[in-house]
Amino acid sequence: MVGGGQGAFIGAVHRMAARLDDRYELVAGALSGNAERAAASAADAGIAPERSYADWRDMAKREGDLRRNGQGGIDAVSIVTPNHLHAPVVRAFLAEGIHIICDKPLTVSLTEALELRELARRSASLFVLTHTYTGYPLVRHARSLVADGAIGELRLVQVEYSQDWWADASALTGEGGWREDPGMAGPAGTLGDVGIHAYQLASYVTGAEPAEIAAELHTFMPDRRLDDHVQVMMRYTNGARGTLWASQVATGCENALSLRVYGSQAQLRFDQENPNVLWLTPQGGVAQRITRGRADSAAAMHATRIPAGHPEGYIEAFAQLYRDAADQIQAHEAGVVAPPSAAYLPGLQAGVSGHRFIDTVIKSHRANSAWVAV
Amino acid sequence: MVGGGQGAFIGAVHRMAARLDDRYELVAGALSGNAERAAASAADAGIAPERSYADWRDMAKREGDLRRNGQGGIDAVSIVTPNHLHAPVVRAFLAEGIHIICDKPLTVSLTEALELRELARRSASLFVLTHTYTGYPLVRHARSLVADGAIGELRLVQVEYSQDWWADASALTGEGGWREDPGMAGPAGTLGDVGIHAYQLASYVTGAEPAEIAAELHTFMPDRRLDDHVQVMMRYTNGARGTLWASQVATGCENALSLRVYGSQAQLRFDQENPNVLWLTPQGGVAQRITRGRADSAAAMHATRIPAGHPEGYIEAFAQLYRDAADQIQAHEAGVVAPPSAAYLPGLQAGVSGHRFIDTVIKSHRANSAWVAV
Amino acid sequence: MVGGGQGAFIGAVHRMAARLDDRYELVAGALSGNAERAAASAADAGIAPERSYADWRDMAKREGDLRRNGQGGIDAVSIVTPNHLHAPVVRAFLAEGIHIICDKPLTVSLTEALELRELARRSASLFVLTHTYTGYPLVRHARSLVADGAIGELRLVQVEYSQDWWADASALTGEGGWREDPGMAGPAGTLGDVGIHAYQLASYVTGAEPAEIAAELHTFMPDRRLDDHVQVMMRYTNGARGTLWASQVATGCENALSLRVYGSQAQLRFDQENPNVLWLTPQGGVAQRITRGRADSAAAMHATRIPAGHPEGYIEAFAQLYRDAADQIQAHEAGVVAPPSAAYLPGLQAGVSGHRFIDTVIKSHRANSAWVAV
Amino acid sequence: MVGGGQGAFIGAVHRMAARLDDRYELVAGALSGNAERAAASAADAGIAPERSYADWRDMAKREGDLRRNGQGGIDAVSIVTPNHLHAPVVRAFLAEGIHIICDKPLTVSLTEALELRELARRSASLFVLTHTYTGYPLVRHARSLVADGAIGELRLVQVEYSQDWWADASALTGEGGWREDPGMAGPAGTLGDVGIHAYQLASYVTGAEPAEIAAELHTFMPDRRLDDHVQVMMRYTNGARGTLWASQVATGCENALSLRVYGSQAQLRFDQENPNVLWLTPQGGVAQRITRGRADSAAAMHATRIPAGHPEGYIEAFAQLYRDAADQIQAHEAGVVAPPSAAYLPGLQAGVSGHRFIDTVIKSHRANSAWVAV
Repeated sequence: MVGGGQGAFIGAVHRMAARLDDRYELVAGALSGNAERAAASAADAGIAPERSYADWRDMAKREGDLRRNGQGGIDAVSIVTPNHLHAPVVRAFLAEGIHIICDKPLTVSLTEALELRELARRSASLFVLTHTYTGYPLVRHARSLVADGAIGELRLVQVEYSQDWWADASALTGEGGWREDPGMAGPAGTLGDVGIHAYQLASYVTGAEPAEIAAELHTFMPDRRLDDHVQVMMRYTNGARGTLWASQVATGCENALSLRVYGSQAQLRFDQENPNVLWLTPQGGVAQRITRGRADSAAAMHATRIPAGHPEGYIEAFAQLYRDAADQIQAHEAGVVAPPSAAYLPGLQAGVSGHRFIDTVIKSHRANSAWVAV
Repeated sequence: MVGGGQGAFIGAVHRMAARLDDRYELVAGALSGNAERAAASAADAGIAPERSYADWRDMAKREGDLRRNGQGGIDAVSIVTPNHLHAPVVRAFLAEGIHIICDKPLTVSLTEALELRELARRSASLFVLTHTYTGYPLVRHARSLVADGAIGELRLVQVEYSQDWWADASALTGEGGWREDPGMAGPAGTLGDVGIHAYQLASYVTGAEPAEIAAELHTFMPDRRLDDHVQVMMRYTNGARGTLWASQVATGCENALSLRVYGSQAQLRFDQENPNVLWLTPQGGVAQRITRGRADSAAAMHATRIPAGHPEGYIEAFAQLYRDAADQIQAHEAGVVAPPSAAYLPGLQAGVSGHRFIDTVIKSHRANSAWVAV
Repeated sequence: MVGGGQGAFIGAVHRMAARLDDRYELVAGALSGNAERAAASAADAGIAPERSYADWRDMAKREGDLRRNGQGGIDAVSIVTPNHLHAPVVRAFLAEGIHIICDKPLTVSLTEALELRELARRSASLFVLTHTYTGYPLVRHARSLVADGAIGELRLVQVEYSQDWWADASALTGEGGWREDPGMAGPAGTLGDVGIHAYQLASYVTGAEPAEIAAELHTFMPDRRLDDHVQVMMRYTNGARGTLWASQVATGCENALSLRVYGSQAQLRFDQENPNVLWLTPQGGVAQRITRGRADSAAAMHATRIPAGHPEGYIEAFAQLYRDAADQIQAHEAGVVAPPSAAYLPGLQAGVSGHRFIDTVIKSHRANSAWVAV
Repeated sequence: MVGGGQGAFIGAVHRMAARLDDRYELVAGALSGNAERAAASAADAGIAPERSYADWRDMAKREGDLRRNGQGGIDAVSIVTPNHLHAPVVRAFLAEGIHIICDKPLTVSLTEALELRELARRSASLFVLTHTYTGYPLVRHARSLVADGAIGELRLVQVEYSQDWWADASALTGEGGWREDPGMAGPAGTLGDVGIHAYQLASYVTGAEPAEIAAELHTFMPDRRLDDHVQVMMRYTNGARGTLWASQVATGCENALSLRVYGSQAQLRFDQENPNVLWLTPQGGVAQRITRGRADSAAAMHATRIPAGHPEGYIEAFAQLYRDAADQIQAHEAGVVAPPSAAYLPGLQAGVSGHRFIDTVIKSHRANSAWVAV
């Protein structure tokens, strides 16, 4: 693991996720750029001192050597640093042929995203981008339903991601503070932190991406250097329409990611805060409340662990990405055909697509919300 | 009553609404432009044949005479015709000094709306525009809360109105068919039918209207001559932002008008389909589920009839407008001071504001969604 | 109307309900036993002074005479007095052949209920008992579904009615105060006020009544003379089981009447506080959220007025009983066959059944909750 | 771990729960009584062959020896066998001074439960009974609220646990089949499988247990040898009342454990299927929807891992019991004072209390539902 030292939120989640299904052992890490903190964090995480690194470059190199020499170097690395470090760290581990599990967003610019995709194509490494919400069984069920034609032709997409944790001027201190530093977060604030999740969720479920976008970024909080709110209108190739909005100043919201998709035959609705429920309503008909335990697609059943009525949550969704990644990596190492979960795991294509979205939103915003082709 | 003959939806609702609180007697009507149907509809509605008119011009003139002569002419008229007739009928009854209760939208153009407002200012008639949803106790409670500072400074508005009854190409036949005829409905389809309700609800609750709009109309159904979908981004004077969308092709939606307002202190949420509940969530705090029977503002308590837990609905909201109108008319006729409900009744100002919205949306749409000042 | 003078809750509801569908004219009343209050209440209600009575005996006699003599006496009377007066008032109007719409409970004892049923059988009058909740379209839809076999064989009944308006010792003052006076309310407090509604709703929907009951009454509030809480276990003839509880000291509850019925094939759930929704869940399957506007039984469609997504409430349910009663009375007077709503209107049989329930609960309670045959 | 071989549901859950917070290492097991299956299951679970046992007696003895001799024997054992084996396995490991984490119900009779409690008192072992639902942050928050007086004096308890997985005659095959074998499950079917959870949840949150019970067991499915449905009325010492019902033939239910508690000041409501929400409604007031991330008690905050709006579920609740057990065991082994979570962990007292409930229900049932003192 690179990043995720003491106090970091997402690193701890990655570790829980990796443990849940007993498919990983955490044996090495560069958990912090600060040597002392790296060592202390490694001790907390049960990493032996000799495999705790203060510099991820050293880690890539030495673990790569161990791996090449059959001395037990890591098979895969989790990258959970602030955004600006994703690209260099990815490059270093790709170069060693180590598989990569990387937090979103992929990087800080579309150019770099394209470059990483290209690098990965030429490497022997697998790449998983942890868009958490794609690990929910009912998100995968929704995707299956759309792919199987259950909603008919796509007509409308309404997606949003609202939080209130930046809603007070004082909110961003401590470990999360890098999120409002353009040098670390990249050019997108809320847009890159949660807007990209909303976009990716819509794309993942519908299998469609907009052809044109008209968008506006906004910063409500004085002294904040990045956007804390974004609103977007979307036009799809087939004539479908949509709106997306994301906000971290949406008072009273916790982690309100929700997606509604309307096709010619039916509507789908998913709210992340209650991920054990998916709604499917046929045109003019009666809404069906599909629960996780009663979703009957192979995709949904593959991504769950416990019986109907026993709720699963965010950690389980995250763990699903790790479990699927483990399946892929094992098959890859064994030289056998990739298991079907390959189709459900976001990777570099999702990363590029997310940065294309960010890029287009920023362009449209700078053009006073003119429609811009994606 | 003018309009509302056999088979018309909204005319029947107006009649139920007028009856509920026993403040009106329906004694005259021009229920249809077709003489035979007018007579049959009048008979159904309990109107005596001698006061059933085939032409609303005759009705205005004769009822005006009766009223002037103290012979029991009507005090007020309900106008429930297709949109294009609102203006001429309003003019005719205004000229007779008869009070007017008119269905929305006020008319078919901003110019005409402004003209009617001016005419009404110079007349002795009161004017109520039946934006139904302003009759809900909890909508009025929400407005009170905002006015009393409960949400702090306005930050975000998210409002939508989605239906699926135009979602099939075959949907518009029979009595409702005029809605897709520009000659009768005006230049706005879904925009004028339900979009205007969404806009008005947001304005009513927040007391604010956007300064600029970027919008797009869309027509999904082939052969439809008006929009059946609209999406809008909004900028408010104080920097607040918002999106509005309205659709009548939103598969699986019944009458899904919902409003969310986020201020610096709290969030409000109202869903028309369960109008007995209003949500108020303070920043970073616990959501409060305010029920109709436990809303403690004067505005809410004034607009309800039955105890907590006994649900009220759409007809009651409509009836509230009639009840309030009756109070206003009686006070006006008696020459006494208007009761406080005056502040809660939409009238010509709301009508003008709605047409300004329609007008701006259409302008922005024609400018490929450029921001246009309202 | 007998009873329902100024300040009474249910009388005003009956009047709104009677007006909504324009099938009744309120022309006579004995609205209070106090002459002055009777007169003032009649004036409020638009009843001419000469048909306002201070004594319901006079009203029955004179209106009966007018009716017999073709001088326009009332066709039907609404009885909305405290419980202990129901029986004598019913007797008086039955004797005159006037149709009766009577609030629940029918009377104050099973003996009297049986007597009234017998009297009515021998009279020319129709009798409707206003168990409000049977007027909800989705309650009727639920009944249709059960009757049509949608849930299979009945297995479990879980029904409850909880309120909090007696939860403070100070709650019962003013007009409602008779509810805790055994001389006026009869021997059952909460049991007769709301428990009977719960029982009737379950019977109405399932078409089944328990064979045996084990029950306990309880009085939480010191100085209260009647029960304010009741809990019941039920055994049905076919082996089905159930529990019923009703409380008016259930802190934080408004008017929480809810019914769940489980059969061998499916489950049904209805909550009165959101009467526009009914849940049907097949065994092992996906819950269906049936809305009022999408319930497709003849019974449901007959009992609603406005389109899908436009919520109806308590007053509409009440009005449905009045509308159906009007249909029945008109057919009866015209000597034609009764319209099908006859099957959906509660009458004396429901009244007897309710008192049999009350009687059995009290017997079981006195036997320390022993099972007692109904 | 004893029990939990291939195909067993709850063993796998225990293992995930133990892993989540990285406080346990699974090093030994007697996962099945069948030697071959034990070995295969151990291999799956990553247990070295030399510490996989086909007989739990051998495991207790050898691991006890290793532990005593400082050779790395296990500190704690998880017992996840069918019910009838709990007691003998507990006795064996208690005798070795190994700490015990045991699935519920504690055993198969009250007598044995009392004996185990006594044995444990005299041993050096800690004992945790995995009543899963006590691991939910909001269950602990509810308990805190009650303890802090937030609901006032206890008045009503309504608790239920309904499932449909025994609702078809064919349901019980495979690994779960022992649940209907009195020789393995004990004398209580649904009562012991889920009824005891409902009882324990109510006791846990309220801190109160009923003084008397009137109950009925029922078996719906032909050929089933144990109850599949139970209904109970309860009287508490302070005069409070309650009903409990549990069913595994409740058509359309998944894992519907829900608790409502009404005190003199407020009502609490918790539904296990959405464990991230707890409702608190003050008398006559507005319901508060408390989310996991916004519950501010020390008890709730201690039992959660991720931020507001990121849902946790059943596995996390289970993991909380393991995490708390680890804290207790470490403190115990270190000879330091027990951390406060001791107060939140169910143990032998909960086990005895559960069996007292089962015992009383059966007695009342046999006495045709007479009230029986607990």
